[in-house]
Amino acid sequence: MSVTAAKGFEAAGVAAGLKSSGGLDLALVVNRGPLSAAAAVFTSNRAKANPIIWSQQVIADGEVSAIVLNSGGANCFTGPQGFQVTHSTAEAVAEALGVSAGDVLVCSTGLIGDQLPLDKVLAGVASAAAALGDRGEDASLAIMTTDSKPKRSVREGTGYTVGGMAKGAGMLAPGLATMLVVITTDADLPSAVLDSALRAATRVSFDRLDSDGCMSTNDQVSLLASGASGVVPSVDEFTAVLTAVCLDLAEQLQGDAEGASHDIRIEVTGAASEDDAVEVGRSVARNNLFKAAVFGNDPNWGRVLAAIGTTSAEFDPYDVDVSMNGVRVCHAGAPDRPRSDVDLSPRRVDVHIALNVGQAAATILTNDLTHDYVHENSAYSS
Amino acid sequence: MSVTAAKGFEAAGVAAGLKSSGGLDLALVVNRGPLSAAAAVFTSNRAKANPIIWSQQVIADGEVSAIVLNSGGANCFTGPQGFQVTHSTAEAVAEALGVSAGDVLVCSTGLIGDQLPLDKVLAGVASAAAALGDRGEDASLAIMTTDSKPKRSVREGTGYTVGGMAKGAGMLAPGLATMLVVITTDADLPSAVLDSALRAATRVSFDRLDSDGCMSTNDQVSLLASGASGVVPSVDEFTAVLTAVCLDLAEQLQGDAEGASHDIRIEVTGAASEDDAVEVGRSVARNNLFKAAVFGNDPNWGRVLAAIGTTSAEFDPYDVDVSMNGVRVCHAGAPDRPRSDVDLSPRRVDVHIALNVGQAAATILTNDLTHDYVHENSAYSS
Repeated sequence: MSVTAAKGFEAAGVAAGLKSSGGLDLALVVNRGPLSAAAAVFTSNRAKANPIIWSQQVIADGEVSAIVLNSGGANCFTGPQGFQVTHSTAEAVAEALGVSAGDVLVCSTGLIGDQLPLDKVLAGVASAAAALGDRGEDASLAIMTTDSKPKRSVREGTGYTVGGMAKGAGMLAPGLATMLVVITTDADLPSAVLDSALRAATRVSFDRLDSDGCMSTNDQVSLLASGASGVVPSVDEFTAVLTAVCLDLAEQLQGDAEGASHDIRIEVTGAASEDDAVEVGRSVARNNLFKAAVFGNDPNWGRVLAAIGTTSAEFDPYDVDVSMNGVRVCHAGAPDRPRSDVDLSPRRVDVHIALNVGQAAATILTNDLTHDYVHENSAYSS
Repeated sequence: MSVTAAKGFEAAGVAAGLKSSGGLDLALVVNRGPLSAAAAVFTSNRAKANPIIWSQQVIADGEVSAIVLNSGGANCFTGPQGFQVTHSTAEAVAEALGVSAGDVLVCSTGLIGDQLPLDKVLAGVASAAAALGDRGEDASLAIMTTDSKPKRSVREGTGYTVGGMAKGAGMLAPGLATMLVVITTDADLPSAVLDSALRAATRVSFDRLDSDGCMSTNDQVSLLASGASGVVPSVDEFTAVLTAVCLDLAEQLQGDAEGASHDIRIEVTGAASEDDAVEVGRSVARNNLFKAAVFGNDPNWGRVLAAIGTTSAEFDPYDVDVSMNGVRVCHAGAPDRPRSDVDLSPRRVDVHIALNVGQAAATILTNDLTHDYVHENSAYSS
């Protein structure tokens, strides 16, 4: 299902030989219309992969007929030759489908700095075009890298459907987007509405996921609308359904983060502004000492406060409360209930930080820092 | 030697029972004059420990007679009771030495959020005052926490001496200072000169050390001058000697960082400004994926570029060169020499990033991300 849950879409996932494992590594998602409206958000990393540079041009007119995605190589920092591979890939898709290359988004993921073999990519495009159908599951498998499982989500609106797929397990600290996500809908909405709905949804979902503080060069979230349901939903309802899909996918990304043994939910309340709440949550989410402590089931709240202290957020160090899994371990900047009352053995860890200066709030999702994270990212180039 | 290398200083290190190991855990350094000039820089963390809050008042008039330091507890987020412990400690030192409590700096290091036992601290102060002498080595041992060895440095100026000690192995990302450092000199200089020299020296030494991105609540670097040499050096010469001591201590901190297996030196050249060079170096130094790759002896330069891309520094992603241990692996944003040419097996790793937009440069010192780092910071509260 996933990207083929909504009416008007076909997909495929094939093995093009880009992954040394021989697994599925090239996905194609096609919008059969009647509408071909689209929106996309991209990594805010200033070092952008070739497919990002290409796709930013494609999305400019809000028209997208298809999106082709490969794992097995990021096609980033591969010079003019790498850009030519992206361009040729889009042209091959366009020719196979009878559409314009300027309406084909391209996404890549894998090791930075290696060239993609163009011949294998082109053969893969041909295979994928021939295999198109209700194959959203194959597509979601073909975009996996170090993911241990595919991420898919489908929600029903009033008479229309929103479905999506995502990949991402490391380098997970998106700025506006995360890794590769494709969402499709058969709602009948113009690209300008899709764009604002997508920005609203990603701002509170993928943008609040900060697994390891490392922003990718290839992040892309695309939303394609076929209009095939004939339903024109209200912008608010559509944004809510879209946000639910994005949040579901973001939590699946968190749950499968490289080497993680805990999914940490950092809820910041009582902030002077939402920006403050996000800054505080992100600072804690990026604190290696705190993350290592959670791995060791150690409710080391001093590391939470040390991380808050590095932010520019409005707060009084002597009027901050911190709770972990429901136990308030710090009250007014001093010890409260004993650390030993906190049970951090479940995978899910809730950290609540009350700044006590205002009414704004935000939640950041992160993971712990584990031996397996170090192992996966030292033993394998990815 | 260390803090007792310069004339006019006495020190001691005793076991006050603050460390469960029973090791040395309380140090006292006394300036016997004739001068009692001093300067200090403190953590820029907004969550400050009680001894920082106290010491910032003490240093205001540039007069310091003694500094007392304890390991075994950070005395941070311990409320009014914790501040009272700091205050009482300074008063006990003042009484034992016949000086003013307002001229006694206090430093603490250890777990955040636990109360220090005042009775043990006061007994320790009495023992230390009784043991004062040429005991800079004992003092340098008493301030260790997870350090595997003491850090000491001595340099001779023209007719005067600068010596120091430092501790710090984790939470090493100082903002203006790092962990605990005490430097003494018998040069005859007023506190205003000491202050500007210390700020100049720390800016290019401790401030360029970013082992794990985690800024402490207790960082303090103090410089005490006794004037006992009778020598009034030039400000430039003194700053150069002081900077050499600070750099030596910073490199010792790097070399003993928790769990590290590589000392990484990130040299950024061709930057538009020194701030840009520091921002780029620090961003790479804080990138967990890059740090894990170095642990695995993997010259994964794509992660270097991805980290540069998250900065606001002036650069063109397609005109950046990256070398690792002398091998240029990336030229003009594309692959250059093969990764396999790079040997990352030595402990020392040199990363050179040429931004090719200006003349400014900076070097950041960091460490790799290892299993031992995760182990030390998950298995033990510190």
